[in-house]
Amino acid sequence: MTFLIIFGGQSFEHEISIVSAITLKEKIKNNNLKFVFIDQTRDFYLIEKENMKSKFFARGKFKKSQKLEIKKGGFFYKKGFLKKEEKLSFDIVINLVHGRDGEDGKIPAMLEFFGIKAISPNIEASAISYNKVLTKAYAKEIGVEVIEYEIINSPKTKFNFPVIVKPARLGSSIGVGVAKNQNELDYAFDVAREFDDLIIAEPFIEGINEYNLAGFLSDEEFIFSKIEKVEKKEYLDFEKKYLDFSRKNIMLSNIEQNFEIKIKEKFTKIYNSTFKNALIRCDFFEKDGIIYLNEINPIPGSMANYLFDNFENKLEMLAKSVTLEEKIIIDYQYINKIQMAKGK
Amino acid sequence: MTFLIIFGGQSFEHEISIVSAITLKEKIKNNNLKFVFIDQTRDFYLIEKENMKSKFFARGKFKKSQKLEIKKGGFFYKKGFLKKEEKLSFDIVINLVHGRDGEDGKIPAMLEFFGIKAISPNIEASAISYNKVLTKAYAKEIGVEVIEYEIINSPKTKFNFPVIVKPARLGSSIGVGVAKNQNELDYAFDVAREFDDLIIAEPFIEGINEYNLAGFLSDEEFIFSKIEKVEKKEYLDFEKKYLDFSRKNIMLSNIEQNFEIKIKEKFTKIYNSTFKNALIRCDFFEKDGIIYLNEINPIPGSMANYLFDNFENKLEMLAKSVTLEEKIIIDYQYINKIQMAKGK
Repeated sequence: MTFLIIFGGQSFEHEISIVSAITLKEKIKNNNLKFVFIDQTRDFYLIEKENMKSKFFARGKFKKSQKLEIKKGGFFYKKGFLKKEEKLSFDIVINLVHGRDGEDGKIPAMLEFFGIKAISPNIEASAISYNKVLTKAYAKEIGVEVIEYEIINSPKTKFNFPVIVKPARLGSSIGVGVAKNQNELDYAFDVAREFDDLIIAEPFIEGINEYNLAGFLSDEEFIFSKIEKVEKKEYLDFEKKYLDFSRKNIMLSNIEQNFEIKIKEKFTKIYNSTFKNALIRCDFFEKDGIIYLNEINPIPGSMANYLFDNFENKLEMLAKSVTLEEKIIIDYQYINKIQMAKGK
Repeated sequence: MTFLIIFGGQSFEHEISIVSAITLKEKIKNNNLKFVFIDQTRDFYLIEKENMKSKFFARGKFKKSQKLEIKKGGFFYKKGFLKKEEKLSFDIVINLVHGRDGEDGKIPAMLEFFGIKAISPNIEASAISYNKVLTKAYAKEIGVEVIEYEIINSPKTKFNFPVIVKPARLGSSIGVGVAKNQNELDYAFDVAREFDDLIIAEPFIEGINEYNLAGFLSDEEFIFSKIEKVEKKEYLDFEKKYLDFSRKNIMLSNIEQNFEIKIKEKFTKIYNSTFKNALIRCDFFEKDGIIYLNEINPIPGSMANYLFDNFENKLEMLAKSVTLEEKIIIDYQYINKIQMAKGK
């Protein structure tokens, strides 16, 4: 099978996506891989496997790579002196563009529109995950607990300090701050506003546990990853989270079976048909036995490969179960009826 | 100003969109208009104004029109013997693709990705409006009442008959049915399942009033349409609603000022920054003085022109206030930091 990994994008997580793609290159050995880079101006480039090094992008060398265009049916390039248009061959896309473009629904929308099969959240799944207010609204609707929160339009909140201030629409902890007093809240609010006009505040809950679980649906069957217990100091900011990106030792939680069943039940409720075709990671909080959804990562870093046994095999399973939307047949019955009614 | 009206699409409302575009042609006199048709295979065609007749589409004559491609910066066509690529000139797009493709976020996503300004809901606004479960979740989150409902996985509901059964993800009343007994519910459920795998049921409330209000935000100021009171028998199905499409006499409600203020307040809450760049129509229910959001039409039929005084002028106001997303600057600081940390 040939996977076409799309990465980059007009996103605050553009660089994370590059690192994510490079990591995935190491993890996929038995299948063929192709790489399509979206630069910050949203041009598409076919990147040779041997050029999949972070410097190649940071130094702008990608600009000499083969340019591509996305169109109905796939990605196309001009070949030779006569500029003959050729179609890039592959079996399935892996959408690995983190943050804007990839996780806000743009790339999912284009892939679906142009009839290109992809391991990717769809538009609706993207919209739900991308905006924390929508994530919470969705979770409540399907009966999954979330940490209480409020939308704040000024540096004021009903919660006691410390509070966590977050831009509603960014991932990877960008723009997120913890405020222990009013001064810090003023600052955290300003920082968050740099990134979004929709800001939320949540109470900072002492001694909360965080668990991550990834998975997907393949032919009616849920495939789950191991559950990761996240060990962290106060709060992981963007740099701490990602300079630590290629971590090899992760803490796998040694948790009781009952808890595992409960957390998988939550995952199943969240995933349902909405996240079809995607490998997602849900980050949960636990306090006093209650499990809360913190966030949904519809394109987790390097596809959360470190959480799966036999990752490549799992990815193939998902790839095989990916479908496009059903076609709608348009037969102009309605217009013909109007024409008839008009007596024409 | 030149408006480029995009219509058609791989949608159950493909034909409605054609009629909608033809209607709009009649309503816009002082500005220039261009028309781009998306056929059911998702090819783009530039349609000459004089060909904007429903027969032209129903009989497949559009296939001889100039083909277009959507790419970074706009729509392009090949000109002359040398097939020189030319860019179609216009000021702003009006996304008039109703239902799938247009209102589910696909076309909004592509327009945003390719940097094309448009009067259109964005991806998030589309996702919220397109799925009735999300619409309700969103409304509750921002403090707007909705009619209670439940997601049904079988023809069973906790509500007493009659109930309304709806596919969650379609507009224009397609697949919607009213059931007065269990037999009818079985049937309505099967019909709804033809269109979506997510089905909801709502109680049918006797004597409920329906009011429609359209509007948009232009430079921090809300521009509202007149309020329409919808007079209807039992339930308007798809055909009744649309064979009646070109209705000239609409009932404008003669309502008290207090009620008007309340309904506009609801509209403002719903619209906020989420629906920026879109002209939307909110359909409200009223019973015993309480106003409920029924649904959000982010691309109302013919842009709800019949509800506005001086419609063309209003459309220009909106067009002038449309913005694209802010650009994100990518400077590879993060990758450079990793490189430095590695000592390379």
